[in-house]
Amino acid sequence: MAAALVRLSTRVSQSAEPPISDLMHRALAQPHLISLAAGFVDQHSLPVAETARAVAELAAEPDLARAALQYGTTLGHGPLREYVLDDVLAADRQPRAASGLTTDRIVLTAGSNQMLHLVTECLCDPGDVVLCAAPTYFVYLGLLDGLGLCGVGVATDRDGIIPEAVQEELLRRKAAGQAHRVKAIYVVSYYDNPSSATLSLARRGRLVDLVRRWSRDNGQQVFILEDAAYRELRYAGDDLPSLRAFDEAGDTVVYAGTFSKSFSPGLRVGWGMLPPALIEPVCHFKGHIDFGSAHFNQAVMARVIESGLFRPHVEKLRAIYREKLAAMLRACERHFGGVPGVRWHAPSGGLYVWLTLDPSLDAGPRGKLFDRAVAAGMLYVPGEFSYASEGVLPQPNTIRLSFGVQTPARIEAGIAALAQAIRETHSQTP
Amino acid sequence: MAAALVRLSTRVSQSAEPPISDLMHRALAQPHLISLAAGFVDQHSLPVAETARAVAELAAEPDLARAALQYGTTLGHGPLREYVLDDVLAADRQPRAASGLTTDRIVLTAGSNQMLHLVTECLCDPGDVVLCAAPTYFVYLGLLDGLGLCGVGVATDRDGIIPEAVQEELLRRKAAGQAHRVKAIYVVSYYDNPSSATLSLARRGRLVDLVRRWSRDNGQQVFILEDAAYRELRYAGDDLPSLRAFDEAGDTVVYAGTFSKSFSPGLRVGWGMLPPALIEPVCHFKGHIDFGSAHFNQAVMARVIESGLFRPHVEKLRAIYREKLAAMLRACERHFGGVPGVRWHAPSGGLYVWLTLDPSLDAGPRGKLFDRAVAAGMLYVPGEFSYASEGVLPQPNTIRLSFGVQTPARIEAGIAALAQAIRETHSQTP
Repeated sequence: MAAALVRLSTRVSQSAEPPISDLMHRALAQPHLISLAAGFVDQHSLPVAETARAVAELAAEPDLARAALQYGTTLGHGPLREYVLDDVLAADRQPRAASGLTTDRIVLTAGSNQMLHLVTECLCDPGDVVLCAAPTYFVYLGLLDGLGLCGVGVATDRDGIIPEAVQEELLRRKAAGQAHRVKAIYVVSYYDNPSSATLSLARRGRLVDLVRRWSRDNGQQVFILEDAAYRELRYAGDDLPSLRAFDEAGDTVVYAGTFSKSFSPGLRVGWGMLPPALIEPVCHFKGHIDFGSAHFNQAVMARVIESGLFRPHVEKLRAIYREKLAAMLRACERHFGGVPGVRWHAPSGGLYVWLTLDPSLDAGPRGKLFDRAVAAGMLYVPGEFSYASEGVLPQPNTIRLSFGVQTPARIEAGIAALAQAIRETHSQTP
Repeated sequence: MAAALVRLSTRVSQSAEPPISDLMHRALAQPHLISLAAGFVDQHSLPVAETARAVAELAAEPDLARAALQYGTTLGHGPLREYVLDDVLAADRQPRAASGLTTDRIVLTAGSNQMLHLVTECLCDPGDVVLCAAPTYFVYLGLLDGLGLCGVGVATDRDGIIPEAVQEELLRRKAAGQAHRVKAIYVVSYYDNPSSATLSLARRGRLVDLVRRWSRDNGQQVFILEDAAYRELRYAGDDLPSLRAFDEAGDTVVYAGTFSKSFSPGLRVGWGMLPPALIEPVCHFKGHIDFGSAHFNQAVMARVIESGLFRPHVEKLRAIYREKLAAMLRACERHFGGVPGVRWHAPSGGLYVWLTLDPSLDAGPRGKLFDRAVAAGMLYVPGEFSYASEGVLPQPNTIRLSFGVQTPARIEAGIAALAQAIRETHSQTP
């Protein structure tokens, strides 16, 4: 008999396939490509010994181990929430007692991505607006699209998202009678993915003030969704206080963190520090959709920290990525030196170098450069994937390069291949 | 300055707090209560040694271990998907080659709860209808409520949901011009939570046929969401083929399974076997909202199975729960024997005994019996929590008892306390 029509929900049927999927298929079809595309972490440094030791230690205390293998709570494993709170406050140089903050504000999630999802679901109805940097993390843009929401790209520079541009966009929305549709501003505040820009100290305070003032004047809270996923991957310069640290009333900033970059993405342990008004809605919704994240993984991460295995691992990662970043920057100097119009900045952390090419070049997935780069043996992420569908227009002459996965030698070879592809494309551009 | 209004999304602001939350708070406030409420698994049998051994074995192969600590794919760890497919087909006595089924149909999730969420999101718009047993799993009812959907309870008996009652409800919806709003039928096909009813063999084929015919005649596919969470917890009788096994075209039944009951809920590893039309939507949406489930946990479960640690553990669990179930049934005989109107059936699997009291008694959370039971030292789940907001009316004289957590001695003491509370309530009912 003929198959009956499958009618999908509006939100799912209207969501586009992420452009990155096609790229991944191409990469899989040509396994010998040097991929400077995937934002994965360095494979060799993944903490096998540390994880196995933490599990063995846990297993030696059967009561604790059994508890970890049982259902946990929606908020998550208490000791890990304690650690997270201490750690964030220490990084922000806020004495815990004086801060008045407690673990009641910490919710553990399956990676920080789940926290971004939960908060966005709690705040936004279809058609609502989230402002974000242009460019910004394309997986979050996919999340917005998947929920039927509207991402709006706001101008950025080397110091991150520009508060005055945020203000202008808010005013534009207000003039259009849509002020109440803006629910959040998404900011990767440290070593942004893809631009590697870190929001400057001066802008942090200004952005929080601006959003608090706007929320008050407008009678509706706009939240700042601070994604601090890369904060621990700092290779030069000082750590800056988070946006959250400027939110003295604690009602404006959601701070999302993760152990995916600093320890292991395969454990999927992330967290949020939330304004009080969002704790209950986030937990209710989380309980409905996943009945709690993996308690075992939270207990293993807690043990990793208690046994002193976490900080040395982060230091080891910093040394590894520092070297890889240096290799990528050296290769850029060497191979792009003679290529007109190629520009980049040296990041002080994260996993990415953001490349701007001559404006005549299209680095997009349907352009000649992309095919030539693949033919030359390397893969990159077209920068245009990182622009929201509204606001600042996609810049087709941009490229995200990741130095997380490949060895220094392969980074060098990948950049050489890209330079060759750019040169070929230039010579054939009329 | 005054706090700005926090405007939550429609779906989140309209969702009610799950009634079970209040119960949990009461339980936590009186830790000495004997809880026959929580549907947790037996704490003492949680597989500490098995998990630690699997992790140690994995760590001894650093390439595999590192891969497990890296991001996985949206579909999940290949070897575990192979095992799941083999296992489901073996249980259903379908030779794999003849079945034509491949691992392309298997998606791993964070517990089966996430699979229920993903499929429900993919199919349903707010206001859409999911039919379910009356009574049914209250966490799934909470999920429906959390997504703004309408659960409709359909009549059941000892053999599970009644296909003719499903048909009648479908016809009622059609008569009201709402046939296209019915997207799915949720069925816990083995040892249902809370009723412990197992859908009879005869009904399995009838239900699948009925839904396929309805979908064809109506021009829109209705899916059966088969929740097989308790299938491995079988203490008597033979295993039955799943509803999925009756879905020869493979376009009607979503089969959701989990290692939460059969191994460890703290690992959160579940799965779905999906009709082809749902694979892509489910994976896209999953990728957007969680960027993949914990790869590490999937690899650990695969190793548990490869090392032959899984089946012996299931046998051990069966022996433990068989004894606990026997203790609960003995206690029911002993203590409810002289209490008028108390009825129950001996289940052949699962974690629950479903009690029906005299119709004059209100076992609900605001009734006298509930308070008396707590005063007598025990906690139960009021049966009324397990009824959808539409369809078959909640039966206030019902109780879910769980024998998963407590020892046989405490089960006996809990039932004695409940019997005392029932007797007291009877004697004071005019």
